[in-house]
Amino acid sequence: MNRMKNLLKDQIIIDGLQYCNWNRELFEDVWTAGFTAIHVTLVYWENTEESFKKFDEWGKLIKDNQDIISHAKGVNDILTAKKNNKVAFIFGFQNSAPINNDIFLIEKFYTRGLRFMQLTYNNQTALGGGCYEQNDSGVSRFGKNVIEEMNRLGIVVDLSHAGKKTCLDAIKFSSKPVAISHANPLFFHNSIRNIDNEVLKELSKKNGFIGLSLYPLHLKDHGDCRLEDYCMMIHQLINMIGDDCIGIGSDLCKNWKDEVLLWMRNGKWTKKLDYGESTVKSLKWPEQPKWFEKGSDIINLYEALIKSGIKEKTVINIMGLNWLNFMKNNFSE
Amino acid sequence: MNRMKNLLKDQIIIDGLQYCNWNRELFEDVWTAGFTAIHVTLVYWENTEESFKKFDEWGKLIKDNQDIISHAKGVNDILTAKKNNKVAFIFGFQNSAPINNDIFLIEKFYTRGLRFMQLTYNNQTALGGGCYEQNDSGVSRFGKNVIEEMNRLGIVVDLSHAGKKTCLDAIKFSSKPVAISHANPLFFHNSIRNIDNEVLKELSKKNGFIGLSLYPLHLKDHGDCRLEDYCMMIHQLINMIGDDCIGIGSDLCKNWKDEVLLWMRNGKWTKKLDYGESTVKSLKWPEQPKWFEKGSDIINLYEALIKSGIKEKTVINIMGLNWLNFMKNNFSE
Repeated sequence: MNRMKNLLKDQIIIDGLQYCNWNRELFEDVWTAGFTAIHVTLVYWENTEESFKKFDEWGKLIKDNQDIISHAKGVNDILTAKKNNKVAFIFGFQNSAPINNDIFLIEKFYTRGLRFMQLTYNNQTALGGGCYEQNDSGVSRFGKNVIEEMNRLGIVVDLSHAGKKTCLDAIKFSSKPVAISHANPLFFHNSIRNIDNEVLKELSKKNGFIGLSLYPLHLKDHGDCRLEDYCMMIHQLINMIGDDCIGIGSDLCKNWKDEVLLWMRNGKWTKKLDYGESTVKSLKWPEQPKWFEKGSDIINLYEALIKSGIKEKTVINIMGLNWLNFMKNNFSE
Repeated sequence: MNRMKNLLKDQIIIDGLQYCNWNRELFEDVWTAGFTAIHVTLVYWENTEESFKKFDEWGKLIKDNQDIISHAKGVNDILTAKKNNKVAFIFGFQNSAPINNDIFLIEKFYTRGLRFMQLTYNNQTALGGGCYEQNDSGVSRFGKNVIEEMNRLGIVVDLSHAGKKTCLDAIKFSSKPVAISHANPLFFHNSIRNIDNEVLKELSKKNGFIGLSLYPLHLKDHGDCRLEDYCMMIHQLINMIGDDCIGIGSDLCKNWKDEVLLWMRNGKWTKKLDYGESTVKSLKWPEQPKWFEKGSDIINLYEALIKSGIKEKTVINIMGLNWLNFMKNNFSE
């Protein structure tokens, strides 16, 4: 296993969201590829107690693989990991279910390492409206208080899976820049999860951030999406909102059984089957594009972006430095 | 202690909501007054585990006072209690915090005796919008499923403390009649907690129910409200929606320290002080009207309603029979 031959070895490479069933093989894949840091999802629908347990499980994962990975609670940890030739893992929640209605839990999770939290996951929560709701409330009374508390502590307000009004409210209410860690512009592909131009523009005005997704259902032509088309989307986006608030949030989901897809879609909120983003009644994970089947395939995107005519410095920023700068503005450590 | 002298002893007297710090003295007061049944609040902001504990605490209260009270899981239990000269207690939640995002918890609480649950308490929940929210989402995707599950089990959908759109949605979506267990018409007193004419009319069209409140902040002139004015409000309401969907839900809060008022208002959703319904920055319980300072004062209302010209049969219905009929349509037992 040799990392040093890698083209990306000297760069800051950050993936703004992955949800994998991590094992040694997957850790080695992103280590070999030269990743600096990855924001990983710990929970979707889990309650408070179940969520605290996920930190314990991750503690063990990190200990068992401490030769190549480490836990990052801040930017300094990320830079130290880089220096020590390790991949830094940052913890996040894709929902606010773990805090239920209790603002005091946020600091308890912060202490364990929580650095990203979505206000909603598809459905309405006590904090705001989800992207699947017919009526988006916007950010609620509790939601405003939670954003203030997250700002105070240094937890990124993540608006992936939120409704449009909730996005616009949170951009307005947050005193720190917010992120949409994993989604694409709606102009690229018409998915309920992708983001319209108004939100993208407001986001960038307030130094907010979008991590671009490689999840098939967020891509034009899904798993058949051409790498060239993905790069053209990035060109368009740069022209719309500039090149310093864009990164990658691949939403890569590796090594999970199909049951986990059902869990993500149905959680505990329905006794029926919900097919989520799938336009067909599929109970299987959608197929990744051939050019991004695993974390280490990030090199394909790097090379294609260069080839597409974006200057190298900008490509390098998109691959990780932009995320790092955004985190510097958000994290307290 | 003699119950049998009481004027109301042969009637069905039901209070559709009380939140007291119950002790022997309070149980004796409502027993002596001739109450048949009282729906009592177990929780506001409590989480799942804390809420299950409330059932344990109530189990002990009922056991310790089993000579005069009993636990009712259905209408038969209420009638049996009446026959046995006991007051029946029905359990409810004033919020959906205990179920967080988990539809499967509803049946678990049902088994313990849950028979009323509010979708919201002032603030937005994952189920719907609260009356204090600037933007009321209406009933959410999860909320629809929860209503279906409550209908299936026989738990009353209680819309007290909900926003207007959430009320209208729930009235529409629920296959069983819904209740607003404790509130007054907005035409009587302009409080954020009181109910506008449109909701009252839609509610009654679907055989829904309103329990009229005696909480000072829901009353014209608050604690100085005249009993005659309260009776006139009932006259007006009967003329608007008929006399069979009206009862009492006194919202009587006895024997609590002021700290509990702060808990009800602030829960765990804010680190600041919220003054709830109070128009002044008061941290004290508001004073009850002189004619309703304790449960047994219900006799004052009974007599005043008769005196106000409502025929006795209708007054008797309002004092309890209407609630009993509503419960027959909702409860499974």
